[in-house]
Amino acid sequence: MSMKVTLAQLNYRIGDLAGNCKKIADVIQQQGNQADLIVFSELCITGYYPLDLLDKPDFIANQDEYIERIKKLSEQYSAGIIIGFVDRNTFSGKPYHNALMLIENGNSCFIYHKKLLPTYNIFSEARHFEPGKIPGVCLFRGHRLGFLICEDGWNDQAPYHYDNNPVQDLAREKPDLILAINSSPSNTGKQEERVLRFTHIAKHCHAPLVYVNQTGANDDIVYDGASFVCDGEGQGILQLPAFEEHVATLTIPDEADKNTSVVSLLSMDNTTLYYQQLIMGIRDYVAKCGFPGIVVGSSGGIDSALTIALAKLAIGADKVTAITMPSRFSSEGSLQDSKALCRNLGIKLYTYSIDDEFALSLQSFSNVFKEPARGLTAENIQARIRGRVLMEYSNQTGYLVLSTGNKSELSVGYATLYGDMCGGLNALGDLYKMQVYALANYYNKLHPEAAIPQEIIDKAPSAELAENQQDSDSLPEYPVLDAILRKYIEGDLISVNEQQQDNVILQQVSAEVIADVKKRVDRAEFKRRQAPPIIRVQRRSFGMGRQRPISGSYAHW
Amino acid sequence: MSMKVTLAQLNYRIGDLAGNCKKIADVIQQQGNQADLIVFSELCITGYYPLDLLDKPDFIANQDEYIERIKKLSEQYSAGIIIGFVDRNTFSGKPYHNALMLIENGNSCFIYHKKLLPTYNIFSEARHFEPGKIPGVCLFRGHRLGFLICEDGWNDQAPYHYDNNPVQDLAREKPDLILAINSSPSNTGKQEERVLRFTHIAKHCHAPLVYVNQTGANDDIVYDGASFVCDGEGQGILQLPAFEEHVATLTIPDEADKNTSVVSLLSMDNTTLYYQQLIMGIRDYVAKCGFPGIVVGSSGGIDSALTIALAKLAIGADKVTAITMPSRFSSEGSLQDSKALCRNLGIKLYTYSIDDEFALSLQSFSNVFKEPARGLTAENIQARIRGRVLMEYSNQTGYLVLSTGNKSELSVGYATLYGDMCGGLNALGDLYKMQVYALANYYNKLHPEAAIPQEIIDKAPSAELAENQQDSDSLPEYPVLDAILRKYIEGDLISVNEQQQDNVILQQVSAEVIADVKKRVDRAEFKRRQAPPIIRVQRRSFGMGRQRPISGSYAHW
Repeated sequence: MSMKVTLAQLNYRIGDLAGNCKKIADVIQQQGNQADLIVFSELCITGYYPLDLLDKPDFIANQDEYIERIKKLSEQYSAGIIIGFVDRNTFSGKPYHNALMLIENGNSCFIYHKKLLPTYNIFSEARHFEPGKIPGVCLFRGHRLGFLICEDGWNDQAPYHYDNNPVQDLAREKPDLILAINSSPSNTGKQEERVLRFTHIAKHCHAPLVYVNQTGANDDIVYDGASFVCDGEGQGILQLPAFEEHVATLTIPDEADKNTSVVSLLSMDNTTLYYQQLIMGIRDYVAKCGFPGIVVGSSGGIDSALTIALAKLAIGADKVTAITMPSRFSSEGSLQDSKALCRNLGIKLYTYSIDDEFALSLQSFSNVFKEPARGLTAENIQARIRGRVLMEYSNQTGYLVLSTGNKSELSVGYATLYGDMCGGLNALGDLYKMQVYALANYYNKLHPEAAIPQEIIDKAPSAELAENQQDSDSLPEYPVLDAILRKYIEGDLISVNEQQQDNVILQQVSAEVIADVKKRVDRAEFKRRQAPPIIRVQRRSFGMGRQRPISGSYAHW
Repeated sequence: MSMKVTLAQLNYRIGDLAGNCKKIADVIQQQGNQADLIVFSELCITGYYPLDLLDKPDFIANQDEYIERIKKLSEQYSAGIIIGFVDRNTFSGKPYHNALMLIENGNSCFIYHKKLLPTYNIFSEARHFEPGKIPGVCLFRGHRLGFLICEDGWNDQAPYHYDNNPVQDLAREKPDLILAINSSPSNTGKQEERVLRFTHIAKHCHAPLVYVNQTGANDDIVYDGASFVCDGEGQGILQLPAFEEHVATLTIPDEADKNTSVVSLLSMDNTTLYYQQLIMGIRDYVAKCGFPGIVVGSSGGIDSALTIALAKLAIGADKVTAITMPSRFSSEGSLQDSKALCRNLGIKLYTYSIDDEFALSLQSFSNVFKEPARGLTAENIQARIRGRVLMEYSNQTGYLVLSTGNKSELSVGYATLYGDMCGGLNALGDLYKMQVYALANYYNKLHPEAAIPQEIIDKAPSAELAENQQDSDSLPEYPVLDAILRKYIEGDLISVNEQQQDNVILQQVSAEVIADVKKRVDRAEFKRRQAPPIIRVQRRSFGMGRQRPISGSYAHW
């Protein structure tokens, strides 16, 4: 074999044809005479996923112009170039294919169309694409290359199995080398599943496999990259880092070559994964939207503390501002904890007391409506004044407000719409509360010099919207709540092992408590509809991945 | 022929298997010995569209139990019963079919699976269903019945054409009678297209056609019903009313019978359609969510005035509250107009001055951040105090806040997130500003005894968030803005006639103005993501029907 292949793991912006093409051209210019093949990822020109930009005909016409530029550029280099692009479907059905093109010396030598189009969870490819029918194999410089585009390799593990199995098709063609291009989002367990799946394909086809994934975040979806190469026995021979752009060139060894050193393929533990993923999610949202900085409301609690710490890691302490907004119900400890936190992290902290405004609004309420604001009404007033102050700072400075809610709160609606839910992005909204604790501890281990104060981690969670309020007044303890929520929200997707762990907890919970939590989740759907994008880390997140009616009615597991 | 067919045009709630089944049973009990066939609409047991409730296996198991009850009930009656339901797919692919069942005397006699699954705009049926392969025809009491499920009849007009054409399949089977069951959402032009399409099918097949559609609103989607029957020459012989539940029985005439009286099939003009649709949209959201009433912020402008008038029509004046919240920038006229409006409509109006709170918040801002709040910051403070007051009333009473923005504002982001965008539902958010005027005038013609004051309709639109502010300071005049927006947002869907009308206006607009509007639309995506559900009336609405990246970048027509 001895073919030199370059893996280009890049960070694309959706719809930014010029910017994406520039990145691709840079790699070609650097590697075009070093490698035999340069492999880019799925839909690298348009970015993944372009959503309904695909419905605009000029979008595809523009993409085609950029492809022509890449072809032209390729004339100056010896390498074959593999790109992911949107191809036109000239037959019946949807107007496009999710496609791959092999370019050599200015020409499109081969085109392959993705056969399995994911249309579940966050994916909706059947909305725009028609499945391919072309065999995924071609000859290139005496080698049989086999191709897969992302989902093509997931037939056996997708929620729905198809008779149409591109891997079986490929195996019949006896490829010498398999090239899999992907835009595979990162979430709990994904790296493990991916490595398992694609090394199995390599073994099944007795051929080395090059797996190229994009990296970077687009809105709520983060792509880890973590591209790799394995040999025909499924052994890792190259692993690219996760959560960064990386270009690497490898000589694919001959089957006979037993001297290749084996590397272990990446499988991060959950907490490390969340850490990396959230930092990239925040950083890319800020960069791609063009915000000059981030502002976070600091309550003295663990969610806001961790959000501030992650924001700092993403864009630097000098671009992050915190505002603490005490009321009569805020403990002195909370204010001190916010101060200690921002001192440790080197973050600018403003203190904005909302007490006078809170008092005035309670007074106005009574005057106008002739009755005092009830408990919940009064609690939400505080949260909404705080949300408004954060938005004032955002309007004044252009800074992005990061909201601080976690998945446990969002699930049961323990959050104030237009209050603490205010923000352009929610960093922790897909982490259950116990995972927030784990991540805060992980952060402190890595950054003892800029630690989240232990007091913040140790104290009992409280919204501090009423006298001596604690989360546990209205909610089950978090280990219990999280176990119920995980089963209700993603029970069909988590592993048997995870289910068993949760079941140990669930066996000690009364049916009433469980039914109450499920009801809260259903009733809070209207709040989640108006939540900012939540950086996705779990198998099933709120948003496109979990679509529920608001005014409907159905309680279930 | 002389078969008696009952059309059951009912209003279902998504996921409410018991409630939906009760409605179905009521009709069977009333009509079961009057008709030969009783026809219910698409997915009538689960409600349309159940979204990811379909992913819960017990949801389908429960549905099946209710189907058994309907079968059992049918044993007591002579009529055949046609229901829409979710059938299991025992082969490869998605686990379900969108299906139709003919029940007779306790038995399922025939099952048909929908062949064309709409997966564009607001539809995502490929997410859950596998297309059918069974011919849509069966024998029933000596008649050849042909079946279509909604999209099956739209192949020629769907955005994407398929070789697979259920209408052609049907024509070959030479049915005596065609039964089309539907959950066909209402929007601009839909009734006309639908009648054109299905009378054409009847002519093509030389067979009478029974078109049964559901009515009612589920979240943002409204179904008009407007079920009908046409003969084999495409002439209307029965028209059910739109936007209400209705059950009607008709003897389908023999081909030889020339005495059948022809009725014209329904095609409402746009303004009438919007009027009916928004009232039903508001009413059903309130009823299905269980709100005790509605509260609206009354600015003295046309959007809030019309929203209040529609809310009254939907649920009655006694259940609607208005709050006017003047600031130093509110004209005396605005306050008077709000008062006159609520007097005319018999709506309770509270006056809540936000001036003291606005002044205090400006003061606090300066104290804390050491600079005065800039123009936009100060404007948004006012909108957000008002949003908070509405939410206070909502928290205190359980009332639904209806937000009042229109599509023109939402398109360009001329709205304050967490301010005037606060609410559980937005009634006018899919009407361009000029359509809001048309609808207000239409309302006044119908309700001269409870009119929107002419002053409100006549005055120049203003947000009144700064001194002497008018919308035209920052936006093109509305006729121009609306034409640009319609082209940008749904230009590929509107008729050639509509395009030409807009083009007359657009020819006089500079390229800079157009480019600026398009940029504003793209930049406001983040606001729309956090908007409440908007009752859908146009061909393409914000929400599921128009999916765009936030952090992406692409300007286009």
